[in-house]
Amino acid sequence: MIGFNREKRNFPPFITLRPIGILHTPFRIPKGMPIQPRGARGALGKVEVFPEYAEGLKDIEGFSHLLLLYHFDRSRLPSLFAKAFLDNEIHGIFATRAPQRPNPIGISVVRLDSVIDNILEVRDMDMLDGTPLLDVKPYVPAFDSPCSGDIRIGWLTKAIPETEFTYSDERFYCDT
Amino acid sequence: MIGFNREKRNFPPFITLRPIGILHTPFRIPKGMPIQPRGARGALGKVEVFPEYAEGLKDIEGFSHLLLLYHFDRSRLPSLFAKAFLDNEIHGIFATRAPQRPNPIGISVVRLDSVIDNILEVRDMDMLDGTPLLDVKPYVPAFDSPCSGDIRIGWLTKAIPETEFTYSDERFYCDT
Repeated sequence: MIGFNREKRNFPPFITLRPIGILHTPFRIPKGMPIQPRGARGALGKVEVFPEYAEGLKDIEGFSHLLLLYHFDRSRLPSLFAKAFLDNEIHGIFATRAPQRPNPIGISVVRLDSVIDNILEVRDMDMLDGTPLLDVKPYVPAFDSPCSGDIRIGWLTKAIPETEFTYSDERFYCDT
Repeated sequence: MIGFNREKRNFPPFITLRPIGILHTPFRIPKGMPIQPRGARGALGKVEVFPEYAEGLKDIEGFSHLLLLYHFDRSRLPSLFAKAFLDNEIHGIFATRAPQRPNPIGISVVRLDSVIDNILEVRDMDMLDGTPLLDVKPYVPAFDSPCSGDIRIGWLTKAIPETEFTYSDERFYCDT
């Protein structure tokens, strides 16, 4: 299709990332954890950026919200399917936000309260305590919301009103 | 701080990811590329998910928009600072969306037109052609927009009206 494939592109088979910090949250075990920031509204936490990356935080205090990218490090082994929290059906993993993805990267939008050296004080944290941080990006509505088209959310249409009141169990996590 | 550090947590020093597909876009070289989907409104492209991951796309056709996570594979070596496209100031890398990040992962919200086997036909694509795909997630406003607080966008406040009319140059990319 479309003129090239992974062989022609000399596609790198692996990409190696390195944690740049740790997320400190109130959620020590998967059970009872919120399943998205909306269910964790107000949950206070800290983003500890390792000192060797702290200079990269310059000017971040001007942003009210951040996108955090992190490693679902205690997720079960990857699967192509997930029985989601929000209904009892099995969906393709890419049609869900479940953590046991082929590349177990999570994203959350959190609210930035303050910056003290290499520590960001934030709220709306919905991750397990101790989660490895991969990236911090400023949240910018003009970049991070759709720029065209009406929004449809498929199987989640019925489920979404439940999100704020639905909490995790251990289904996606290794024994902790 | 807060009770543990990376030693106590037995923090993994590396995380290894594997591309799950390729992004096909109209942008063969960094020069002239849009800098965000908003500048690429309507730009047609295809997400080729490698066949071994195609089952994970079940039910994705119900979603109008997707979050694509991808590897900035032709970005320059990581830096803690960036002189952004949208002003002439130097900012901490985590206060920008520049690609030469310690972990060079990009995120874009794109619009899904159709699904044909392992190919997603999409628009609003703002990546370089041939970019390695890491993850596909359904875009869900209740998950992906801030759940509390007014939004401030720091140094981008002045620059954002320019986004649609600003195009990339080579500053962040290796020679291509």
